[in-house]
This record gives sequence, structure tokens and C-alpha cells, in this order.
Amino acid sequence: MPTIKDVANLAGLSVATVSRAMNGTGYVSEKAREKIHQAINELNYSPNEVARSLYQKKSKLIGLLLPDISNPFFPLVAKGVEDFLQKKGYQVILGNIQEDNEKANEYLRAFEQNNVAGILSAVENKNRTQSNIPTVVLDRIDQDVEYGVYSDDLQGGELAAEAILKGDPKKVVVIAGPESVTRARDRLLSVEYTLKKAQVPYALVKSTSFLLEDATLTAKQVFLEHPTVDSVIAPSDTHAIAIMQEAYHHGVKIPEQLQVIGYDDIPISKLVVPRLTTIHQPAYQVGYKGAEMLFALINDQFIEQKKIILPVHLEERETVRNGGTPIE
Amino acid sequence: MPTIKDVANLAGLSVATVSRAMNGTGYVSEKAREKIHQAINELNYSPNEVARSLYQKKSKLIGLLLPDISNPFFPLVAKGVEDFLQKKGYQVILGNIQEDNEKANEYLRAFEQNNVAGILSAVENKNRTQSNIPTVVLDRIDQDVEYGVYSDDLQGGELAAEAILKGDPKKVVVIAGPESVTRARDRLLSVEYTLKKAQVPYALVKSTSFLLEDATLTAKQVFLEHPTVDSVIAPSDTHAIAIMQEAYHHGVKIPEQLQVIGYDDIPISKLVVPRLTTIHQPAYQVGYKGAEMLFALINDQFIEQKKIILPVHLEERETVRNGGTPIE
Repeated sequence: MPTIKDVANLAGLSVATVSRAMNGTGYVSEKAREKIHQAINELNYSPNEVARSLYQKKSKLIGLLLPDISNPFFPLVAKGVEDFLQKKGYQVILGNIQEDNEKANEYLRAFEQNNVAGILSAVENKNRTQSNIPTVVLDRIDQDVEYGVYSDDLQGGELAAEAILKGDPKKVVVIAGPESVTRARDRLLSVEYTLKKAQVPYALVKSTSFLLEDATLTAKQVFLEHPTVDSVIAPSDTHAIAIMQEAYHHGVKIPEQLQVIGYDDIPISKLVVPRLTTIHQPAYQVGYKGAEMLFALINDQFIEQKKIILPVHLEERETVRNGGTPIE
Repeated sequence: MPTIKDVANLAGLSVATVSRAMNGTGYVSEKAREKIHQAINELNYSPNEVARSLYQKKSKLIGLLLPDISNPFFPLVAKGVEDFLQKKGYQVILGNIQEDNEKANEYLRAFEQNNVAGILSAVENKNRTQSNIPTVVLDRIDQDVEYGVYSDDLQGGELAAEAILKGDPKKVVVIAGPESVTRARDRLLSVEYTLKKAQVPYALVKSTSFLLEDATLTAKQVFLEHPTVDSVIAPSDTHAIAIMQEAYHHGVKIPEQLQVIGYDDIPISKLVVPRLTTIHQPAYQVGYKGAEMLFALINDQFIEQKKIILPVHLEERETVRNGGTPIE
């Protein structure tokens, strides 16, 4: 592969002159520029991405901030992101913060230092708007987000509550997602609204995170505090599967004695026994559409819709009584 | 933040000269060097990572090649990689090839163009040795790998077969992992050796990949071809969970009528009902130790052990008869 030195030799100029011409950092005569241009063409010279990034002030790197890569929802988002960006010649720098906001700031600094062209963030972080790097928020949303792609939580909460209502619930427990996650709050709001409208009482159990370990603890708490529970609305499939596990230990039959609905539709939810009824979130599409929007943003293209809300739907499987058919 | 221009102004030199000095691309007098040095100190100037990468010929980026990020095993590997590298100030560029070898080559080119300091590859790819970028292979292994971290497949295959043998098997089906994956072949070899030594006959069913969709098809095939199967040795937890699902549809009780053992110990295997007995692979450790080895390689440190084989162990849970206690 030809180097900048080869270009300089062929052009009969110093490397410094060629470098000046390429970086626009000093005076280079018209004649020299022409020679450099010819040499570049003749040698089919292409500077590597790092040199190009310095030259163009933009790299072909995108920073991707994820809350927890071991939560099966986020690898699907990452897959969508990658599938779009790879087609456009961009690479993804991964930032997995493992639900630790201090790490988010470290990653944002690292993204900046690596001169990323843009950031896709699925992390609730107040600091993200301070940088002037084009940013699209994925999945999570708060008031001050300008560009974002997420799915419809109000619709999702309503669908989940309606499915449970069809199953003649006597003692409903609603597990609330972490309070710090705005989207979990919206979902909860919609669940509560739908239950109240139907005049069905319910108990709330708070969960602290979407981490697997925490979901298991929350499931134990549900059975401890509400031994007569016969219906659970969970904030994630992980929580729902933890509830199924705990029900098994208590000898409680699903869905006959306990119906449970998840949220997300992670791949494994189709494979557990019985198969988990859940709200399908278009995780892959969130990643793909988000990357598409970021690409438009980076390339100063017109963005018709700054916030895209994707629809969700009920996946009727085997953990809700009456098959969980939505109310017509 | 001070720029190279500020350094040049303060030093009373041209940007081209400062750039020459920093990049070592041409003659710069001792006196000029001293002035530049002083100006850099005075301004507390630090070139950004891209500039530094060009200057040092090494970046703080590591390329991570994964076969399939939606297989829950690999996010754990990625987590280990990230946890080590973040402490050292390195960032990870993600390359998820989705079991498509053509993509692996594209990613390797992209890593090279981005001037990565090293590569961690969990992908079986013959081309990887052609580049001179320091590379450590994770999880997968073939003959020509120089540096690698993986877990003990011979031990794992033996432990899986022994657990199944304890459960008094009448009709054993062994699901073979994809033929292209050397480690799956080693595991299979060890399973077959252990069964033959015990003089227990078995049938083989081939699987084409570790993708969820393929695992589901393979599970269907097992029941179709071997309706009297009472023991399954699976090449991954995903395959084992697919078998559990299929057993449920056939009204077959686990472990009474059908015992099944997985491989990997992905997070969800603790949560399925009944809880999956499996071989625990130290996925996080594979990532962490691999990153540690790569860091040593990049920094020309002495590497005591070029191939690290980590031990596995049997996770006794509920899907193997007799609790799957290993033979003493």
C-alpha cells in the first residue's frame, strides 16, 4: 500500500508539503498541489482511516452507549445499529456501562477523544447534551432529548394490562421498572391507568434495575409480600421469567393459578416453558432506525421526524389465561 | 483546549514544523524542538486520540470480532473484554459477523483502517493470521492460533456425558455442534469417547449453527427422528432449552422421561423451568483474560502462557436424573 512518503517522492516534494496540502495547515503553491494530486491518482493512494479522520475532522466511528449488554434486549438493538452502519462503512465503538452512570461519562469522553462522528445512546444520562457530537437516543427517552427512536410505552402498558384483565384477575401485582428510567415510568403509568379504569385493584412492587440478579430478588419479594397473587404484570421478560421460576418453586401452576405477562419479547421468551406471553418491542428496528437517523444527522440531511415512536404488539403465548386475547 | 496552532504560535514556528516534529516526518532543528517542547508544556497541549494514534502509530482502540451477539454467551465475553480494557484506557470496536465469514473479512479490513492496536477474535477465520496486528483468539481455537484463551472442551464433553450416564439412559441423542467450529468438534469427540467407553449406544443429530432459529429446527428433528429419546446431550444451552420446549409440546416430562444437559451456562439457564443442568463455561473470564493477554502483547510484555485453557464445571440443576452428580 502506498504511503504519504511515496506520494511525496513521486511528486518531487517533501512529506511536510504533502502533509500541509492534505491537512490544509499551511501555504502550498498551486503547482505543488497539482503535482500532489497527480501523484495521489497515479499511486491510487488512500490515507488510512485515522489520517482521513484527522483530515476530514470526522471519523467513520460511531459510539454506542448501552446500559447492560448482558440484558438480551440490547444485543438486538446493537445488531440493528451495526447492520445499518456497516452498509455505510461506519464502525461501532461499544460502551457498555453496566447500569453505572459514572462509566457513561467516561465512555462519552473516550468517544470524544476518538473523534467519533456520532453517538447512539441507550443510556439515561443528563450529561449527553453537553457535547456537540450528533447524538440519537435509543430506547430510553427523557424531556430534553432532541433526536430519538423508541417504542410506544403507553400502548405497551395498555396492551399488557388489557391482556391480564381478560384472564379474570383476583389479585394483581404490578412490578414497577426502575424509577430512574423514564420509559419504565410511562409504561407503569399506562398500566395503572388501564387497571384503574377497569376498577381492578392492584399492588405495586418496585424493582431496582433490569439486571438478572435484581429481577430474581424482586420475584422472591412478590411471593413473600403477596402470597395470594394470581396475576403479575412485569416490566421486562427477565422479570417475568424470574416470576415463572419462583412460581415453580412455590408449586404454583402457570397460567391456571398465576398468569404473568412480560415486556420486550427477548429471543428466549419463545423458548421458556410455558412460552411467555409478552409485549413485543421492535429492538432491532430501534437500533436500525436510530442509526439511520444518526447517519442523516451526520451528513446534514433533512430529518423529517426527530422522534420516532415505533408501535409494539401483544405476543399471545401461554402464560396468560384465555390466551390473553386483547379486548376488542 | 489548545490546538497545534496555539503550540506553533507560542513557539514562534509554523504549524508544519510542529507537525513535522510531532510526527517525526522531516528535519526539525534541536532549537525548534526545544521551543515546541516548552510550548507544549506551557499550554498543557494534548493531541486528541486520533492525532495521537497517527503519531504513535498505535491507537487506543481494540477490534472485537464476535460470531453472534444475540447468542447470550458472547455478551458475557464482551463484558469481560470491556471491563479489563476500560481500566487501561482502551475502547472496543465491535464487529458482530452474525455467523457470516464474508463479514469477518470486512471487519478485519475496517479494524486495520482504524489503526486498532490489537484484535480479539471469537471467530473461526483463516484470514486472521495474515495481518500483523497483535491478535488473541477468544473461545474458538484452531491449529494455527498462536495466542488464545478458551475453556476446556475435552473436560466439558466428559462431564456432560458422565452426568447423563448417571441418569440411566436408554436412548441417548447427542446433538453435534456446527462442524466448522473446532471447539464443538473437540467437545463432541470427548462426549463420544466417554459414551463409548461406558458402552452406551447413542444417535447423532447434526446442528448447523448456534443461532436460536437453527436450534429450534434441530430440536424438532431430534423428536422426529428419535421419538423414544430419553437423554439429550446438547452443544449449547440454547439447543438444550429448545429441546425442553419441544419436550413440553410432546407432553414429555423433564427429567423423568427425558433428561437433557446444556453447555455454556448462559444467564437464562438458571431461570428456565426446570432449571437447566449444564456445563459452566467461564465466558466472562475468557474475555477478561484474553484482553489481559492482548494488552501484554501490545505492550511487548513477556507472555508466560500463550494459550490459556480455563477449567469448566458441571452446574447441577434440575434437568438430569439423579441430580446429575458426577461419577466419583
